[in-house]
Amino acid sequence: MPNTEIYKIAIIGTGNVAVNLSLALKDAGLDIIQVFGRNKIFAKELAIKLNSSFTTDLKKITTDADLIILSILDSALSDVVNEINIENSLIVHTSGTTSIDVLKNASINYGVFYPLQTFIKQKRISFDNIPVCVEANNIENLKKIKQLAEKISKDVREINSDERKIIHLSAVIASNFSNYMYLVAEDVLKKHGIPFDILKPLIKETSEKIKEHNPKQVQTGPAYRNDLGVIKEHLDMLSNFPDYKEVYKLISENLLKLNMV
Amino acid sequence: MPNTEIYKIAIIGTGNVAVNLSLALKDAGLDIIQVFGRNKIFAKELAIKLNSSFTTDLKKITTDADLIILSILDSALSDVVNEINIENSLIVHTSGTTSIDVLKNASINYGVFYPLQTFIKQKRISFDNIPVCVEANNIENLKKIKQLAEKISKDVREINSDERKIIHLSAVIASNFSNYMYLVAEDVLKKHGIPFDILKPLIKETSEKIKEHNPKQVQTGPAYRNDLGVIKEHLDMLSNFPDYKEVYKLISENLLKLNMV
Repeated sequence: MPNTEIYKIAIIGTGNVAVNLSLALKDAGLDIIQVFGRNKIFAKELAIKLNSSFTTDLKKITTDADLIILSILDSALSDVVNEINIENSLIVHTSGTTSIDVLKNASINYGVFYPLQTFIKQKRISFDNIPVCVEANNIENLKKIKQLAEKISKDVREINSDERKIIHLSAVIASNFSNYMYLVAEDVLKKHGIPFDILKPLIKETSEKIKEHNPKQVQTGPAYRNDLGVIKEHLDMLSNFPDYKEVYKLISENLLKLNMV
Repeated sequence: MPNTEIYKIAIIGTGNVAVNLSLALKDAGLDIIQVFGRNKIFAKELAIKLNSSFTTDLKKITTDADLIILSILDSALSDVVNEINIENSLIVHTSGTTSIDVLKNASINYGVFYPLQTFIKQKRISFDNIPVCVEANNIENLKKIKQLAEKISKDVREINSDERKIIHLSAVIASNFSNYMYLVAEDVLKKHGIPFDILKPLIKETSEKIKEHNPKQVQTGPAYRNDLGVIKEHLDMLSNFPDYKEVYKLISENLLKLNMV
């Protein structure tokens, strides 16, 4: 019986996902043996945290690892895949959007390990409840990848590349675009000397309502209740913020339509 | 020395704010003596919960209350103000956008009591941390209104009508528009048979990040990292959702600009 467990890991990338994921894996008892980063400062910084070696040379990626995690920009994936030489090592990427097939040219053993969360370097978070979407080119590899994911998360799901793309798209909308709304709200307040903290209980409650209710049920606001007077006044108030005004207008139009359905 | 404390309250309106606010006041020991609602079923339903009387006739609004709370659509405020006859009773509205001045014709004693939160009837929430923005036409009335607000909330702020309008505008953006993003994300997932629950840890974390960081610092996503390939792919995936596609496009354009600043 072949050894199906992953112990030694190499990580390619030093971005938000690479940092958070590799630290979570280390905390779960895995051995991160190598970090690759084009930027020596970032690579060294992460390697120190992980107690691992590091390299800035793609050709020197180790073949001693049980798993190589490729956590880089989507746009760089196929170039890196063509440059590395990892023999038959198991390799996964962490992208929401890119198909598993991009890894075909890297090795005969490959898969996907996509943690569905928003990460920044400045804030470490527990992986416990983060859905990890896994996929692999065969059952043996899937088993290894799932086992690893289960060491850090209680919510591991087998998701194929097409579904994963949809999930990533919806995640961008639900997370990145909500955060953009916070950003706009903060900017509007700041321009008028009002501290952003006044909105924090509201933001908290808005995100908590959807735990138990679906978003349509809890939609409120002037557009949803057809209050054209308030919408007009808000648009006037945004005259000095043309980008924000356009966003306000478009979303209000969509909310008005929604209520007519 | 005049009695400055409010004990007896009448509430005009049976919407989301009226229901949540009147129940919170009752729980804090206030006596809600009358509910007005045009719709008899809603008025009676709320009156039963509050152990109060109710009326569907604006002319019968009681003058026995220490405070009358007007919690109705912005667009209906001035009409109702012209119809009621409440002598010199203290009256407040709960609107984010409408100026305190709309109440000039209702009484010589008036103010604003604006709880900054998103309310739905199906979910009761504690007022404890909800910022309550108060305003009044004189110091005596302000004192009364503040005292009342402090019975339900730890965060009572004196805010004038101009500031309140800005706060309300930013609240619509931060809350109603974020919820719209959840709604879109849910709809996209549903059309592909994927349950919305997969996004819940992400939504939670997105809203929690801004407790300690400002929204600009924690902005992530394809547009913010200039990943035009992913944006293009997402727009293609939204071909069957023209409204959502337009939203995706506009917000991504704004995020791309933001990163260039």
